[in-house]
Amino acid sequence: MNNGAPMSSCPLPLRHYPHVLMAHGGGGRLMQDLIEHVFRPAFGNPLLDQRHDGATLEMEAGRIAFTTDSYVVRPLFFPGGDIGSLAVNGTVNDLAMCGARPLYLSAGFVIEEGLPMDALRRAVASMAAAARRAGVSIVTGDTKVVDRGKGDGLYINTAGVGRVVAPRPIGPAAVRPGDAILLNGDIGRHGIAIMAAREGIGFETEIASDCMPLHEDVLRLFEAGIAVRCLRDCTRGGLAAALIEIARDRGLRLHIDGRAVPVQPAVRGACEMLGLDPLYVANEGRFIAIVAAEDAERGLALLGPAAARIGAATDEPRGMLTLTSEIGATRVVDLLSGEQLPRIC
Amino acid sequence: MNNGAPMSSCPLPLRHYPHVLMAHGGGGRLMQDLIEHVFRPAFGNPLLDQRHDGATLEMEAGRIAFTTDSYVVRPLFFPGGDIGSLAVNGTVNDLAMCGARPLYLSAGFVIEEGLPMDALRRAVASMAAAARRAGVSIVTGDTKVVDRGKGDGLYINTAGVGRVVAPRPIGPAAVRPGDAILLNGDIGRHGIAIMAAREGIGFETEIASDCMPLHEDVLRLFEAGIAVRCLRDCTRGGLAAALIEIARDRGLRLHIDGRAVPVQPAVRGACEMLGLDPLYVANEGRFIAIVAAEDAERGLALLGPAAARIGAATDEPRGMLTLTSEIGATRVVDLLSGEQLPRIC
Repeated sequence: MNNGAPMSSCPLPLRHYPHVLMAHGGGGRLMQDLIEHVFRPAFGNPLLDQRHDGATLEMEAGRIAFTTDSYVVRPLFFPGGDIGSLAVNGTVNDLAMCGARPLYLSAGFVIEEGLPMDALRRAVASMAAAARRAGVSIVTGDTKVVDRGKGDGLYINTAGVGRVVAPRPIGPAAVRPGDAILLNGDIGRHGIAIMAAREGIGFETEIASDCMPLHEDVLRLFEAGIAVRCLRDCTRGGLAAALIEIARDRGLRLHIDGRAVPVQPAVRGACEMLGLDPLYVANEGRFIAIVAAEDAERGLALLGPAAARIGAATDEPRGMLTLTSEIGATRVVDLLSGEQLPRIC
Repeated sequence: MNNGAPMSSCPLPLRHYPHVLMAHGGGGRLMQDLIEHVFRPAFGNPLLDQRHDGATLEMEAGRIAFTTDSYVVRPLFFPGGDIGSLAVNGTVNDLAMCGARPLYLSAGFVIEEGLPMDALRRAVASMAAAARRAGVSIVTGDTKVVDRGKGDGLYINTAGVGRVVAPRPIGPAAVRPGDAILLNGDIGRHGIAIMAAREGIGFETEIASDCMPLHEDVLRLFEAGIAVRCLRDCTRGGLAAALIEIARDRGLRLHIDGRAVPVQPAVRGACEMLGLDPLYVANEGRFIAIVAAEDAERGLALLGPAAARIGAATDEPRGMLTLTSEIGATRVVDLLSGEQLPRIC
């Protein structure tokens, strides 16, 4: 019944367990041990140290943003990131896309029995480092352990709370004909990095994930008074899915010039080899900002030299994305049924 | 690569998919379909309908509570509840234990490829019903699908945001010698109900989980001005773990009278048969309230006829729990290493 965990009142110290056991999720001594020796030292902050069933946080009046994502990426570690940095940056970025300054995260771990304790420690250390970099605190958490064969090492859920700084509501509804579409950098690296790590494919140039926090870029736009209409990160489904969803929700045709979309040569080559379209490949550090046309160049400068102005909202009331291709032809870009690369985040 | 999901630009309508496919988590058309036909009709509310990467919520100034739990219960459906009601009530209760009125939940689904679509619909309908009952809105969510054999049907994470109503900080640090320990009802039903459903054990009387929201009981205590010191729900690790953790954090000995702790005869019988101690069996609708001794009887009345005054905080600076047994002997109650029954929540 206890799956091999010692049930005496005096278990061994954590260092004697090279793997996670069912009992580490059982609400008893071993779970306390895991919290005290793995989670608390990494995430430690006065709010987490409240040792409550949750954290209580002082908030000013105003709008908050609230979001969640579960991370099931395979493999857990890959060039440019790992499940820990992804779990922090992904949720930080969802808050940023709501026009918010990220403040607090929760962390829920679903661990498969048998996960090496070192892998858990590495993922947790990476989360802590990403949280420090993004200026957010992990203030509350939860740990569950599931039987061997009922998970895949580690799944992490994070939820986030931030303070909305956008002076006006942003979202598809705010997009107007003529608005410019800005992209903050080259696309396709995250998905290809995961794929290469998963399948053991080596490229001449190592392709690293673009996993990074985006809120500073976003906050810079608001601080400069740029008329931001809509923000969307280009994760699952890539740049294409982000733009198609906005076009559909708004009921306006968006148009981009494929030749203006930055793609690293190594990524383009890998996509050709694997039969993938970079437009649909997931990113973890890329977003589009739809801004008023008159603010486009200023916005572009604020996003830095890697950013590009890739297109515009048209005045046609058709909720679709069109693209001018390399050879100058225009075509409709549609959603795929699923993801070209499953479990990339 | 797409795991059998159709990748044409015109997939079948959702009703033609009796099981969840990898592509339902892929950020493309099938995921949109799942959101539009399963999640949005069940949870629909103006905040969720923002169709953003997160929800933005207007909050008054003051303290908020923020908490998270992942739910990995096996089986997904059991007498008295299911993973959906558990995922709502569990997080609602964690907010309540922070002295907060629950307001908003997030929902993160990790679905194993092949889960019957009907099971997902049932769990989602149950979440929606539990949210309505508890008066909370599910305002943001996420769906991931993992390969067959890398999950166990369905895992759900919920995070919650609430408004703190407790006039003073509550928690172990606030407990004083002489305070009374109140328990809101009989213990042990949830764990035994799960165990019976999992192992196919039939008892003469069916034992149903006590899964229910607790915030109304908690809010009633605060509204009546009861001097609440600490609240804790008796989930993983049961009543024993809840009290031991408080005693340790506070560094005071807590003492309870085992004869005063309500246990249904059927639960007691089942525990004897299975070799379990009801003190450690998980509950999902039970909590302890440590209150000022002078408010104990009034608090007890507010918690209703099933509640019991089971003990008190002593003035001994030893962080432990002691218990007077059925035969009148006093013993120390220690944490188990793990959980007697894994995956009960």
